[in-house]
Amino acid sequence: MVKLDIEIRICRGRRGTLHFIRFPTSEMKNFLALAKSKGMANFVTTVCATGGGAYKFENDFQREVNMKLAKYDEFDSLLKGLQFVDSYNRKECYYWSNPTDESLCKKEEYDFSNPYPFLLVNIGSGVSMLAVNSPSSFKRVSGTSLGGGTFLGLCCLLTGCNTFEEAIELAASGDSTRVDKLVRDIYGGDYARFGLPGDLVASSFGHMNSRDKRSKVKREDLARATLVTITNNIGSIARMCAIQEKIDRVVFIGNFLRVNPIAMKLLAYAMDYWSKGTMKALFLEHEGYLGAVGCLLQYHQSIHDRIRN
Amino acid sequence: MVKLDIEIRICRGRRGTLHFIRFPTSEMKNFLALAKSKGMANFVTTVCATGGGAYKFENDFQREVNMKLAKYDEFDSLLKGLQFVDSYNRKECYYWSNPTDESLCKKEEYDFSNPYPFLLVNIGSGVSMLAVNSPSSFKRVSGTSLGGGTFLGLCCLLTGCNTFEEAIELAASGDSTRVDKLVRDIYGGDYARFGLPGDLVASSFGHMNSRDKRSKVKREDLARATLVTITNNIGSIARMCAIQEKIDRVVFIGNFLRVNPIAMKLLAYAMDYWSKGTMKALFLEHEGYLGAVGCLLQYHQSIHDRIRN
Repeated sequence: MVKLDIEIRICRGRRGTLHFIRFPTSEMKNFLALAKSKGMANFVTTVCATGGGAYKFENDFQREVNMKLAKYDEFDSLLKGLQFVDSYNRKECYYWSNPTDESLCKKEEYDFSNPYPFLLVNIGSGVSMLAVNSPSSFKRVSGTSLGGGTFLGLCCLLTGCNTFEEAIELAASGDSTRVDKLVRDIYGGDYARFGLPGDLVASSFGHMNSRDKRSKVKREDLARATLVTITNNIGSIARMCAIQEKIDRVVFIGNFLRVNPIAMKLLAYAMDYWSKGTMKALFLEHEGYLGAVGCLLQYHQSIHDRIRN
Repeated sequence: MVKLDIEIRICRGRRGTLHFIRFPTSEMKNFLALAKSKGMANFVTTVCATGGGAYKFENDFQREVNMKLAKYDEFDSLLKGLQFVDSYNRKECYYWSNPTDESLCKKEEYDFSNPYPFLLVNIGSGVSMLAVNSPSSFKRVSGTSLGGGTFLGLCCLLTGCNTFEEAIELAASGDSTRVDKLVRDIYGGDYARFGLPGDLVASSFGHMNSRDKRSKVKREDLARATLVTITNNIGSIARMCAIQEKIDRVVFIGNFLRVNPIAMKLLAYAMDYWSKGTMKALFLEHEGYLGAVGCLLQYHQSIHDRIRN
């Protein structure tokens, strides 16, 4: 369980602690059965909800446990949650220093008190990219369907694993260069004229058309290659969006990054290397819980407004 | 074997036919053995070569068959080849009309005699994107390692197939919606506020974290999902590049598109739909042979120059 000690000033100055737990929406049926058996509806009438599930499961909540969903848009919720959590937790935002040198690369606090403009890259099962210009002004500039769900789905198929944690653990001890074809595998070295270094991936999974190479590859290598492929693709699209929007700070959030330093370091490396140090990849401690906080805040605000009027 | 009837004027006004054959570089050893056994070096002294293989296999050619490679840069070769082939073959360039309506979608000739500027997307094992502004001026603006090699590598791993043709045939009868999670699987319908239709892929391979769904999926579905994932990702990155470069015509080439109408129609659809009809996807009949023609032309030019000086 992840905790965040904060003084929730919006709630009549009371001090408290937010606790976060998570489960995949595929477990919603089990959650509702549990909520029903524990008589949760006796002490809670409304559940704040955001994202697609808020629409998809509304009727189930009503029918199974007689609870109402207070539904809020997922991007509004993300941004309100992010602003709130960052302002109450000074250690919320961080970056990876020296990302191009594995031995020196480490996590460092980042002062995000003056955040605008920034690009927000939310990596859930899919990926959305928002250009955020002020607390209330943002637009969805891009996205890709190759996200955390693609990483996990492919890893399950390729390695027989069943959970995200398992997939990440496999990836941690794998070698993606047994799976991917590098520039040096094609050119014998760098492709210097166009600035493509020899150790750059030229073709993800490019070795796997060879029966011989397939027979020598391990589950760990396949998991690592999947992680590298998905992560680098997201980094590359994010960088293009940032250039187009003339933004130099990119905040990566979403549950894909949970317990996933490999992906974070790859993103930090890619942003730094390809921008020649002009762009920065930022990360948040509560990377997957910002939407939940944001819709709670919006619900409180709506009650406050109702009382006032 | 693919043929192209042309009058090769550069070669002292003689009329002739260019014949094209292809084999993967993984077969280079076998090719050299064949060339040796047939005594090819007795009537050919120089082979024109481009791409990474020109560097990687140079010593093997010298040692095995005593042939020299005349090496030319792959992008220079591609562009010279493209200009030449298009100018000698009026039916070279085509597009897919009505790409958003499967029943009306069909191949149509395109007059590409006034081509500049255009974006060239070369989909080989990896992908390179070039902004081409004149016959002699271009820059590599982007690329992705998720290309034809990724499609084939993943298909081999996921379906047990062994060739590109087999992978395409499997994909033709598969259903990717059994593998991918769509916006409607998350939202129950469209995500209207941000213009995301319900049938858009939200998470490629997003259903495959479910053991139950994995047990029901067919090889064909996995091949189709792989094809859709890789193709849409390329289309999406190409569109971003075209916007950034203020270019509205995108020419897709490379052997990934050979015998691959599914990918071409997907690219045509994606470019048309997301640009609201302002961008056009173009294709070439000799999609995978332009580099070969281009380096042959450069070799002829160099001989011509040598004779003249």
